[in-house]
Amino acid sequence: MKIGILGYGNLGRGVEAAIKQNDDMSLTAVFTRRNPESVKIATSTAKVIHIDNILDYKDEIDVLVICGGSATDLPLQTPEYVNYFNVIDSFDTHAKIPEHFENVNKNATRSGKIGIISVGWDPGMFSLNRLYANAILPCGSDYTFWGKGVSQGHSDAIRRIDGVIDARQYTIPVDAAIEAVKSGSEPKLTTREKHKRECFVVAKDGADLERIEKEIVTMPNYFADYDTTVHFITMDEMKQNHSGLPHGGTVIRSGKTGLNCENTAVIEYKLKLDSNPEFTASVLIAYARAAYRLNQKGEKGCKTVFDIPPALLSPKSNEELRRHLL
Amino acid sequence: MKIGILGYGNLGRGVEAAIKQNDDMSLTAVFTRRNPESVKIATSTAKVIHIDNILDYKDEIDVLVICGGSATDLPLQTPEYVNYFNVIDSFDTHAKIPEHFENVNKNATRSGKIGIISVGWDPGMFSLNRLYANAILPCGSDYTFWGKGVSQGHSDAIRRIDGVIDARQYTIPVDAAIEAVKSGSEPKLTTREKHKRECFVVAKDGADLERIEKEIVTMPNYFADYDTTVHFITMDEMKQNHSGLPHGGTVIRSGKTGLNCENTAVIEYKLKLDSNPEFTASVLIAYARAAYRLNQKGEKGCKTVFDIPPALLSPKSNEELRRHLL
Repeated sequence: MKIGILGYGNLGRGVEAAIKQNDDMSLTAVFTRRNPESVKIATSTAKVIHIDNILDYKDEIDVLVICGGSATDLPLQTPEYVNYFNVIDSFDTHAKIPEHFENVNKNATRSGKIGIISVGWDPGMFSLNRLYANAILPCGSDYTFWGKGVSQGHSDAIRRIDGVIDARQYTIPVDAAIEAVKSGSEPKLTTREKHKRECFVVAKDGADLERIEKEIVTMPNYFADYDTTVHFITMDEMKQNHSGLPHGGTVIRSGKTGLNCENTAVIEYKLKLDSNPEFTASVLIAYARAAYRLNQKGEKGCKTVFDIPPALLSPKSNEELRRHLL
Repeated sequence: MKIGILGYGNLGRGVEAAIKQNDDMSLTAVFTRRNPESVKIATSTAKVIHIDNILDYKDEIDVLVICGGSATDLPLQTPEYVNYFNVIDSFDTHAKIPEHFENVNKNATRSGKIGIISVGWDPGMFSLNRLYANAILPCGSDYTFWGKGVSQGHSDAIRRIDGVIDARQYTIPVDAAIEAVKSGSEPKLTTREKHKRECFVVAKDGADLERIEKEIVTMPNYFADYDTTVHFITMDEMKQNHSGLPHGGTVIRSGKTGLNCENTAVIEYKLKLDSNPEFTASVLIAYARAAYRLNQKGEKGCKTVFDIPPALLSPKSNEELRRHLL
């Protein structure tokens, strides 16, 4: 299976690393908007090609993994490139998924290609677990906790404050809330009860730290509804202690079984990730395998994780899977 | 969707309860080897029919849920009834799944029906989570912990000891082992390090308790490889404190991401169930929906949870699922 990567940021590099763990795949090329000469990749057998020349590769790539951002890249790129390639993306603007699906589906149906959208962990593996758990336990409540992990959006919001040089924001689930949910009591939880936020900020020399802290903790949508802690640190501390992109979280469905709903069942799915982008990339690569196989079987159109038979994700045969994993 | 239940033990009653939680389904009939007059069911609109007359219902039932035992019932019943019905079972003898699959597949292919086998939580949801996690993290280690929960097989083994009237055995995962695995260290664990066993035994008046305890803790395969605790209790205590069938467990895959495997990712799936048979039944019913839909689309043959697109389990439309659960 020959893979192309469009966009070589954290996610693109993660996809490159994931391909190396899968013997049935190889990286053919990385496509970039930058000057290809300036982009050094880790795969000596693959090329770096300017995005303007991507269509030269339309018969040389089985699946194109699109690693752009959800705000402006993916809404244009995924519908565009599914005209020529089987594609896969990690579009994560939940509210716009139906619109993105329609745009990709229209073109994929016409081109005869497969486009799998919104692949990763949320949306992605968390969504799958919500679906399975809801189908099994129709009477119950869903809970999603994120973290402990770095939220890029919240870190960016802090960086936009006057006097801030750099910032890292950790989303942290509240242990007591998770324990209450895991007990099966189906508690009603407010935003503040579910998560807290911890911010590490590098400020300019002489900046008004009190004002910066107040601007952070009162920021609507991002921080005002949470218990937020702000720590001012040096740039050295930032580099040394906060350069990673860890994340994770927990999806829980708590429901009832029995004729009179007398028994409780709790289903929990939890991720603990040193590297958010590398894990997302690993999920993308498993679904790239499925995209290729579906297209080989003559299928086309837009799909999500909900539509994909799990066996298609594995390099093992159906017989092996039944024998060793069932 | 019209459902039939074959076999009305703990699992069959669980299926009946699960059907009541799903508006798109109704119970048509329970089929039994017993005298139908003697079987009281909880669904006033459904019939109780002797198994000898089951074929009278072959055009009135969309999916037959076969609730027999894996040792002797299912190897015969599932291949037999897939000649006439879409069927689903919870066959859980892991080593014999390939053979059972072939037997069901041969007849289902000929009859044009769907047979989904080995549905439940292990095999079933645990298997699915092993598959997903292995596909995402090819470099890593798998761990399955069972419990705390009642093991029927181990309870039965104790009951066969001379002088024992009743027994209940709890399989208990060792907390330290789970914590070690969740840390991402990929420990090698012995059988004894992973689980311990706790037994509650009602003995005959005057029985030699020391001999019974020794027979239990030294029993090969069942107990000899574990740290086993034995408590002698009265029949009243047994009825009051050990009448439920709780179970659960945890599937964990711990793996590496990154170009040089420098980052750890831990995927955990955990179940905590007050009623093992009711939860298994709830999974069966979700897959019964999928069996019906697949057959409506013209598909046939034997399937497992690995083959079923997740969306087919939910009563919601694909549009609703994308909008609300993705």
